[in-house]
Amino acid sequence: MYSYSYLFDFTQSVFEKMGLSTGEARQAADILMRAELRNISTHGLVRLPEYVRLWQDKRITVTPEFVVVHETPSTALVDGGKGLGLITAPKAMNLAIEKAKTAGTGWVAVRNSYHFGIAGYYAMKALEHDMIGITMTNTNPLVAPTYSKYGMLGTNPIAVAIPAGEEPPFVADFATSPVSRGKVDVFESEGKDTPDGLLQDNQGSPTIDSSILRNGGALRTLGGDMAHGGHKGFCLTSIVDIFSAVFSGANFGPTVVPTLGYVKDKAGAEDNGIGHFFGAMRIDAFQTAAEFKAGMDKWIRTFREAEPVDGKERVIIPGDPERKSEAKKMKEGIALSKKSLDGLKNVAGIFEIPFEVL
Amino acid sequence: MYSYSYLFDFTQSVFEKMGLSTGEARQAADILMRAELRNISTHGLVRLPEYVRLWQDKRITVTPEFVVVHETPSTALVDGGKGLGLITAPKAMNLAIEKAKTAGTGWVAVRNSYHFGIAGYYAMKALEHDMIGITMTNTNPLVAPTYSKYGMLGTNPIAVAIPAGEEPPFVADFATSPVSRGKVDVFESEGKDTPDGLLQDNQGSPTIDSSILRNGGALRTLGGDMAHGGHKGFCLTSIVDIFSAVFSGANFGPTVVPTLGYVKDKAGAEDNGIGHFFGAMRIDAFQTAAEFKAGMDKWIRTFREAEPVDGKERVIIPGDPERKSEAKKMKEGIALSKKSLDGLKNVAGIFEIPFEVL
Repeated sequence: MYSYSYLFDFTQSVFEKMGLSTGEARQAADILMRAELRNISTHGLVRLPEYVRLWQDKRITVTPEFVVVHETPSTALVDGGKGLGLITAPKAMNLAIEKAKTAGTGWVAVRNSYHFGIAGYYAMKALEHDMIGITMTNTNPLVAPTYSKYGMLGTNPIAVAIPAGEEPPFVADFATSPVSRGKVDVFESEGKDTPDGLLQDNQGSPTIDSSILRNGGALRTLGGDMAHGGHKGFCLTSIVDIFSAVFSGANFGPTVVPTLGYVKDKAGAEDNGIGHFFGAMRIDAFQTAAEFKAGMDKWIRTFREAEPVDGKERVIIPGDPERKSEAKKMKEGIALSKKSLDGLKNVAGIFEIPFEVL
Repeated sequence: MYSYSYLFDFTQSVFEKMGLSTGEARQAADILMRAELRNISTHGLVRLPEYVRLWQDKRITVTPEFVVVHETPSTALVDGGKGLGLITAPKAMNLAIEKAKTAGTGWVAVRNSYHFGIAGYYAMKALEHDMIGITMTNTNPLVAPTYSKYGMLGTNPIAVAIPAGEEPPFVADFATSPVSRGKVDVFESEGKDTPDGLLQDNQGSPTIDSSILRNGGALRTLGGDMAHGGHKGFCLTSIVDIFSAVFSGANFGPTVVPTLGYVKDKAGAEDNGIGHFFGAMRIDAFQTAAEFKAGMDKWIRTFREAEPVDGKERVIIPGDPERKSEAKKMKEGIALSKKSLDGLKNVAGIFEIPFEVL
């Protein structure tokens, strides 16, 4: 087990070696480490080698300009200057929060950015301002729209963080595909099949082969086929794509220039990076803050205390498992997968930073 | 087949007999008829008897006050005064549009309202102002959260309407449950089973019995079980519930006082009606309107022209089938189901309005 601070310091050092300022390196490390703590390790340190490769390939700059291209009292468009999402996204979320202070709500679309870690990190930033936070982003095209033979949309996550009063906040943070690409990678590395209904092969036929994403296959939309509401999953993932990328002018859907080696690049697409969308809403924008907090406490308790099906302990409030995991891992330490370990060793070698393999 | 104008006039007369002004009766008829035209007949004239019953039971007023309780430059809370959603919702959407004109975006939460027809109607109202429209509402508690034995959430629809340039708009309008309650009613009336994975019985066990909602059963969330992302569907439906009802102070989740006879009422719940949430965003809030429209045209064409799986004609852009249906039914007429016909005959009898059974 690694201690939080050991992994944090190592990650900060890597980002500093890439040329980030100390402050920005700490910010970037905080985002990846938050994913580790919250047990969303698919978006944690396992991604560090991807960031390093993007930097080696000169696809990202580590000192990006943050340009507000256009704005209204409650909105702004930001050009992230081909910077790491981990640098640009925190600033964009702050801008949404600042807008909300005066306009009640703030909404910021970002283009020319790259992978930003867990969406929930930014949504949760709103909580400390007594605001609701919303985050969306588009990603590598791996999800097949209903009736499409190929993957055209990202796993496009949404995060919504909502403060409560005495209860901890409601924090939903989920890929809009039924599983994330990271989960399928884990099935593959463990030699397991993926549950039925989640994947299709390069002809659009159902498959459980966990290596299929590397072989022209795609994830299906949330719901699966039409009879089970898969077209609603297509709508949802599309809305995230449009809010993130069409609002901002980033590359949308299949025109996203992949950061994954095994996703086919559409030759000739202009690269405006991926897009993000951030929202902040003051909790007193509709009722008083006290009424809102009392309402959320009541909502959370009502669902947490609901009668569960036999064999299950309770209905899980979004954010509960991740918060428990944070407390546990801060105390007991963080275990890394073999893939993460190999990646960190590799990165340590590139930058000549010591990394202790436990 | 009935002509559009015959059914519109009949519906307007019913609302006038209930005491609505001519203008509001026409507005209400327009919403229900739009559902018929768009082939969302589960939210069309089949609902008219439900509205009449709510009025007979004195649960709704037909001359509600529309009170703005609280506001910021981009938001407002409206108390709908226990009015029909068909009267209150159009005004609330207009308020969101007015807010967006100056603040860039406008967001209105409504409490003390009732069923408002198809969510898409209001979202589409934004299109004529070169705005994106968003609508949510909560509804009768029929959807079981992941691990819950009972239905606690509504089928809580979301609609998002996004203008394009030369292409028709993107209009997604969907219950966040895998199927709507109306669809299960249709399976039941046709004596058909409901596809596997969509329903659970009064112990939370899977069932295909289409009468189960009347017998203590519930709909499952979009995705189904955890392995297929059902907890994401739970998050999504919860977010709609919170935005619609906790933001506004309406009755949330299982505390919604049912409008369906077969949903158990939670004794003693204070009745603040159901809640809606409306959003309007200027398309030039992020980029110029011209850039936005060009981007949406490109998005729509990219997906419409994608290679389909064998046996399917093309990927369907949200809104395409409904728009085609509108054109067809305006020209060829509207067929009513036996349930709709019986309901309209009944309503005609109550108000002594002629209704011709074809």
